[in-house]
Amino acid sequence: MNNKAQPVALAKSYLLLNHGPVTLVTSASGGRRNVMSAAWSMPLDFDPPKVLLVIDRQTLTRELVEASGEFALSVPCRALADAVLAAGSMSGRDGDKFARSGFETFAATRIGAPLIRDCVAWLECRVIPEPVNQQRYDLFIAEVLAAWADPEVFSGGRWHFPDAGRKTIHYQAGGTFFATGEAFECPPAVQ
Amino acid sequence: MNNKAQPVALAKSYLLLNHGPVTLVTSASGGRRNVMSAAWSMPLDFDPPKVLLVIDRQTLTRELVEASGEFALSVPCRALADAVLAAGSMSGRDGDKFARSGFETFAATRIGAPLIRDCVAWLECRVIPEPVNQQRYDLFIAEVLAAWADPEVFSGGRWHFPDAGRKTIHYQAGGTFFATGEAFECPPAVQ
Repeated sequence: MNNKAQPVALAKSYLLLNHGPVTLVTSASGGRRNVMSAAWSMPLDFDPPKVLLVIDRQTLTRELVEASGEFALSVPCRALADAVLAAGSMSGRDGDKFARSGFETFAATRIGAPLIRDCVAWLECRVIPEPVNQQRYDLFIAEVLAAWADPEVFSGGRWHFPDAGRKTIHYQAGGTFFATGEAFECPPAVQ
Repeated sequence: MNNKAQPVALAKSYLLLNHGPVTLVTSASGGRRNVMSAAWSMPLDFDPPKVLLVIDRQTLTRELVEASGEFALSVPCRALADAVLAAGSMSGRDGDKFARSGFETFAATRIGAPLIRDCVAWLECRVIPEPVNQQRYDLFIAEVLAAWADPEVFSGGRWHFPDAGRKTIHYQAGGTFFATGEAFECPPAVQ
């Protein structure tokens, strides 16, 4: 295990995606593996935690996820943005995207797909088969089996970005991202 | 129509949610209406555009959306954060949440649910019935029928926040949000 990745309680794992960051989807099956970037992922349930992920039917990731029933979500930070964009604009069918994107990996604990080093959080996921969603909408539902975060960036159920390079990022379009911005707290509502 | 809301081409409407902002869900049926805040919404498809939304089965919103087959997503900005938090922490069953949250509304064009004034973008949505998703996962799929944005904040397919109060916001937990942060562009990937 990457020494930056510390366990996150499963019931708190939705917090890793709750603010809508872009993710990196990794998958592996039959000696092949792939990585793609995905803006369309979000939590679906708290405990047991579930996530939603849209995977286009043309992608190698789709083939590997359907074959293995597993994927991982790694949450990248701003320092990796160039590689995130690269992973979103090339196909794994043309050769290993990890090397071409500059991503290094480490082993997950519950699934075969690798996790992306130097990200700030990770979720290991097992697909809950819902063939109608998958075929009709390219939509996958998965249970989160294990979750991890870099404690310098997420701990105690809160993000606390230590520097600009480790902020999570949100995809806009055309190679443009937003960094996660200023945190602010609202007073409890008067009801 | 609110004079701040200008049409957004349907094929570009996913850009209003792509970066993962929190949303306000409005619904109406049989003379009743409601508003709730929702972090768990995201695009599902480009054209025709579809969105995903999780609606807990205990909520009045769920009852109104199931009865009407419609809902709207209004994308609030930082100036509304206190009201967004209020709308997420009270029930519409206890009385009109619009007044208690301080929200004013204006009429949608394609659906009966109202839109929230002083937000920065709006999506009018019709549910695509998927009973298994709704019953098993509290998950709703909807087609976007019309989309609108304040052109001072979103135009030409891009967000360009003119001031801190009109930045979109992302929900963390416990009354804590992130503002949408700095925009940055990555160079095209070398493939």
